[in-house]
Amino acid sequence: MENVQNPLKVGVVGAGYWGPNLARNFVNSSDWELKAICDQDMTRAEDLARKTGSPAVVGSIGALLENHDIDAVAIATPARTHHAIAMQALSAGKHVLVEKPLADNRRSGMEMVAAAEASGAVLMADHTYCYTPAVMKIQELICEGELGEILYIDSVRINLGLVQPDVDVFWDLAPHDLSILDFILPGGLASATVSAQGADPLHSGKSCVGYLSLPLANGALAHIHVNWLSPTKIRQMVIGGSRRTLVWDDLNPQQRISVYDRGVTLGDSRDRQEDATIRKAAAINYRLGDTWSPALPEYEALGKMVGEFAASIREGRSARTDGRAALRVLSVLEAASRSLARGGRRSQVSGSELLLEKAI
Amino acid sequence: MENVQNPLKVGVVGAGYWGPNLARNFVNSSDWELKAICDQDMTRAEDLARKTGSPAVVGSIGALLENHDIDAVAIATPARTHHAIAMQALSAGKHVLVEKPLADNRRSGMEMVAAAEASGAVLMADHTYCYTPAVMKIQELICEGELGEILYIDSVRINLGLVQPDVDVFWDLAPHDLSILDFILPGGLASATVSAQGADPLHSGKSCVGYLSLPLANGALAHIHVNWLSPTKIRQMVIGGSRRTLVWDDLNPQQRISVYDRGVTLGDSRDRQEDATIRKAAAINYRLGDTWSPALPEYEALGKMVGEFAASIREGRSARTDGRAALRVLSVLEAASRSLARGGRRSQVSGSELLLEKAI
Amino acid sequence: MENVQNPLKVGVVGAGYWGPNLARNFVNSSDWELKAICDQDMTRAEDLARKTGSPAVVGSIGALLENHDIDAVAIATPARTHHAIAMQALSAGKHVLVEKPLADNRRSGMEMVAAAEASGAVLMADHTYCYTPAVMKIQELICEGELGEILYIDSVRINLGLVQPDVDVFWDLAPHDLSILDFILPGGLASATVSAQGADPLHSGKSCVGYLSLPLANGALAHIHVNWLSPTKIRQMVIGGSRRTLVWDDLNPQQRISVYDRGVTLGDSRDRQEDATIRKAAAINYRLGDTWSPALPEYEALGKMVGEFAASIREGRSARTDGRAALRVLSVLEAASRSLARGGRRSQVSGSELLLEKAI
Amino acid sequence: MENVQNPLKVGVVGAGYWGPNLARNFVNSSDWELKAICDQDMTRAEDLARKTGSPAVVGSIGALLENHDIDAVAIATPARTHHAIAMQALSAGKHVLVEKPLADNRRSGMEMVAAAEASGAVLMADHTYCYTPAVMKIQELICEGELGEILYIDSVRINLGLVQPDVDVFWDLAPHDLSILDFILPGGLASATVSAQGADPLHSGKSCVGYLSLPLANGALAHIHVNWLSPTKIRQMVIGGSRRTLVWDDLNPQQRISVYDRGVTLGDSRDRQEDATIRKAAAINYRLGDTWSPALPEYEALGKMVGEFAASIREGRSARTDGRAALRVLSVLEAASRSLARGGRRSQVSGSELLLEKAI
Repeated sequence: MENVQNPLKVGVVGAGYWGPNLARNFVNSSDWELKAICDQDMTRAEDLARKTGSPAVVGSIGALLENHDIDAVAIATPARTHHAIAMQALSAGKHVLVEKPLADNRRSGMEMVAAAEASGAVLMADHTYCYTPAVMKIQELICEGELGEILYIDSVRINLGLVQPDVDVFWDLAPHDLSILDFILPGGLASATVSAQGADPLHSGKSCVGYLSLPLANGALAHIHVNWLSPTKIRQMVIGGSRRTLVWDDLNPQQRISVYDRGVTLGDSRDRQEDATIRKAAAINYRLGDTWSPALPEYEALGKMVGEFAASIREGRSARTDGRAALRVLSVLEAASRSLARGGRRSQVSGSELLLEKAI
Repeated sequence: MENVQNPLKVGVVGAGYWGPNLARNFVNSSDWELKAICDQDMTRAEDLARKTGSPAVVGSIGALLENHDIDAVAIATPARTHHAIAMQALSAGKHVLVEKPLADNRRSGMEMVAAAEASGAVLMADHTYCYTPAVMKIQELICEGELGEILYIDSVRINLGLVQPDVDVFWDLAPHDLSILDFILPGGLASATVSAQGADPLHSGKSCVGYLSLPLANGALAHIHVNWLSPTKIRQMVIGGSRRTLVWDDLNPQQRISVYDRGVTLGDSRDRQEDATIRKAAAINYRLGDTWSPALPEYEALGKMVGEFAASIREGRSARTDGRAALRVLSVLEAASRSLARGGRRSQVSGSELLLEKAI
Repeated sequence: MENVQNPLKVGVVGAGYWGPNLARNFVNSSDWELKAICDQDMTRAEDLARKTGSPAVVGSIGALLENHDIDAVAIATPARTHHAIAMQALSAGKHVLVEKPLADNRRSGMEMVAAAEASGAVLMADHTYCYTPAVMKIQELICEGELGEILYIDSVRINLGLVQPDVDVFWDLAPHDLSILDFILPGGLASATVSAQGADPLHSGKSCVGYLSLPLANGALAHIHVNWLSPTKIRQMVIGGSRRTLVWDDLNPQQRISVYDRGVTLGDSRDRQEDATIRKAAAINYRLGDTWSPALPEYEALGKMVGEFAASIREGRSARTDGRAALRVLSVLEAASRSLARGGRRSQVSGSELLLEKAI
Repeated sequence: MENVQNPLKVGVVGAGYWGPNLARNFVNSSDWELKAICDQDMTRAEDLARKTGSPAVVGSIGALLENHDIDAVAIATPARTHHAIAMQALSAGKHVLVEKPLADNRRSGMEMVAAAEASGAVLMADHTYCYTPAVMKIQELICEGELGEILYIDSVRINLGLVQPDVDVFWDLAPHDLSILDFILPGGLASATVSAQGADPLHSGKSCVGYLSLPLANGALAHIHVNWLSPTKIRQMVIGGSRRTLVWDDLNPQQRISVYDRGVTLGDSRDRQEDATIRKAAAINYRLGDTWSPALPEYEALGKMVGEFAASIREGRSARTDGRAALRVLSVLEAASRSLARGGRRSQVSGSELLLEKAI
């Protein structure tokens, strides 16, 4: 049905690492028409244009907004430039898609969200993982209650990474985990506090190894391990639930998701007479059931993501990974930086209730 | 040579879970003669005796010490009973081997160490992992400088575990990791502080999921993840070094240890003119070299351990995992409990310098 | 119920590699009383006796049969001695359990089966794998139709093995795979022919690398790869069915059995007009469903096996892995040797219909 | 140096599954200029052209050869059309690259090779695997003698594959394994005979499960397992050598190649007095050494392949995977088909000595 509509027109800003992926997905989508590539490095932009059906090439965001009839702008430039480019696009009345992180600080992110809400435009973060078949299945399973209450989440995202000149390992890698948590947790990323432990054993001036602890509701805990110095690559998230536990191993294409019907439960023991300690122990039950790995559909997450961008514009609604979701991620990252500066003490996650509430 | 000596005589106290393993290894060792099994449950003791060449069976530590001509006592009873049994054996002039943890609190451990040193007896903790082929190889590689400076250590020890009635997950599982760190780190377990994050999502009254952060010298960090609620079993330790990084996967018998000649280094950049941030980034070098997995000898760790117990007695020296090593482990565990009670704040690891110093 | 019966009395012949495992399981079973250990090497026999509750020790099968009141004999000696020992025991009226292979040639095996049937004694082969939780589950799933029709079976059993002085890799390793096939296939090991390919690249005088192909009913095929020269150990069997496909990876304790609801089917295409080739292609359907891994109970296979030995004696029936099952395995091995000698040509599997028919 | 030369001009025939990969690599190579895309389906060709810098689009090989100034033709059409297209291109004086297999029968392949040699043109098969970092490293290690003498090769290539309308599983998958063997074996694919076992349990009219045995020099054996019906995907080759054994697991990006310094050797035992069997056994030695995994460079194999195509044209020499190499692969495939038709009997691999000799 949507295909009978005229495609939306988009310009991609940034032809470096990520921009070509966005451009390719806009080209392959019937929802979109790629009108222009924008990069200060015109050669790079032209090279990309040649492989994407020869859209126009421009050297500045100003030129893009002035000369081309576009509905939306997709920004794939360094994080510190997101705010300026997005604000310019929003004030020109364009819908805006921004590569993660939304901005390099929370204040900038708040301005972007406010500007978008004022203008009625869609502001969306490219939290790509939230559009993968695996994460969409996880969200669905949690939502349907298959895992029961969440007891703990342990995420590991480590590899030999490029030590970045401007951000530490938390700001580089943890946005992935945080945006996923925000998407799959029924209440979104609602931790009131965060503790961060980091190490800079190379004396590079910023953490290369990091651990985040996020207390969740009901005594549950989320923990994230990010690391640029690991020679092996691990992308694994364990989501322990009161009914079942899910393990997502993103580097195992043959079995990305395993749902274990194993666990520990505390039984009802109100009528017992023993002292509390023993009573609790006695009432613990083990469940050693089957393992199940759901078949996942195969599609490219970015294709799904540009589809959601188009749908949210056409339906006049918030996108799944909208500016507010991205702001919740920024709020945790800023609180983590404060915790790190204070030796790992729990730090409050700031946030206006309005902005941080997840629409359900 | 040692075989021409008369074997030492030992009594095993506790015929439950671990005692049979100790008894079997004493029987198979030419250093030892198993003289008696001691357990309040005489049936259990007799059952064990039948499978270990029919040593004597006694029902109390008093009876063991009075009626049998033994050199040493091996204690495999619940942790809360270690102190009383060990003190009784030490005051009877026996050498003492204690299953981990040495005691259920640091004060008791200090008394045990002091009593052993006063009597000149060997007090040794059965930190079994320190006698495995894998850990002995790791210690050797670190000692020889193959890994360079230690940058970080990340240990994961998770499985669906028996929720214990009397201890939390830290006291149950982390002694393994801590005793290994104490053994493989050149300066022993010398962290001045520890931070602990725990979760009790089952509301069992104690942590079932836990994380420990231990700052090491030179900005390095050790981190330990222990978890009773994981449906999958993981036993993995990553030791990042300035020269190479080692991954120990204890559940992969075909390649337990992998040494990666990959990493990140900061080069010399003193003559550069740029501002500090850029300069650092510019001087980072990546190394993507080969992986090497050393062949490990095959032997049972407990056999090695009872051999070390005999050798330390005969040579009148401290055992490799002696009472002081065990006390360093207890000190970290107690500090972790304090950190946990204070919401994860860094807690000082107590210790008299005398007791906590590792002999080299 | 069975525990109220008096235990059966058994003597174990052979205290070398496998005998101690049998002895230990007889001792731990309430069905059995271990009366004697028999080995020409009396020191070895005495050493085993000390660890198994001190049964009698004898130096010959004659002494065992004359002097001890036993119901059954368990034989764990080299294969070439099985026939003589078993025949002696059977003629003395004893029930007999024999370590695999039943004998070192088919004729000897037939004599043993005939002797047992004449005397009414139980003759059973210790095909241990058939008593493991994994194989019992596989048999159950096939029997219940969960896999549908069997399309192919591919078994790999390779490792760095001891090159045997007297047998080739087929006779050493393939009895495991063949006995498993005999157990799990509804009609037993009913291949009419077998082809064998072998290699002796070390010029040791016998095959160290081998491949067996066994055509099954309805165009299906079983294939077995056995190899003494592989540095990595693999124990994997894939059982492709028309409904589902099962993969058994015996070295993955966390997921030994995986059942894949994936496959290829040919649809009904009778009313199509195209030529045969295109029609067939058009009617092929792919199914990409979930994966399921059943929880397996935990027990020691040998304990189950000695229990079946006792039950078959008490109930006067054939044991699950009786002499005839073992004979079917020998028949395939002999046919494989003939195929090997003839350059891999298909060789008929001999067998009297009476002896080779599997009782259902 | 080569970059200063004018790029060679190429037309790609076939814009279906594989053609876009070839086109993309020609576009990204400084050795090549992509001049035209040729496909009977002009829409498909135009779609590909839009993503590859907009070369010309033609609907027939005739139009391509008549109207465009090209040096070479790259053919990515169904196998049965390779011969006609390649002969047309060769007779027009073009160099020709052909997707594997070179042709759908050996006779056609011989004509292509003869035509290319007569015209002096380069005829090359796109045996892509031979240009991967892994296979190039394997070839290098064997060539340098790191593995010693080859004892056995076991290759497994199984997955849930598209049952092809026109070819069986041998012709679909085994060309990969055979072309790799031809490349890595010092003497090329020189097996004099081949045996094939196949199964068609779906009654589709052709084998879906297949096994090939290829005796090699000195008692060694190569074995290939190809399978369209496996729910799990395996791409593994074990190459056992007298010095070391190499395992290539192509689906393990973190450790594709492992070299095991483990093995079995027969020692010198000429002066022993025992009978032959025992003597052999006594002289067997086991080696349980380290494992080593070489770092592999990262590049796209197809990029390397089009580079080799250009280099062989410019240097007037045979390409690494030239027509003769492809013909050796076809000869084995045809012999395998004959073996299959004769129940697995060994079948002679035909070949004129001239054509089948590998240039060294």
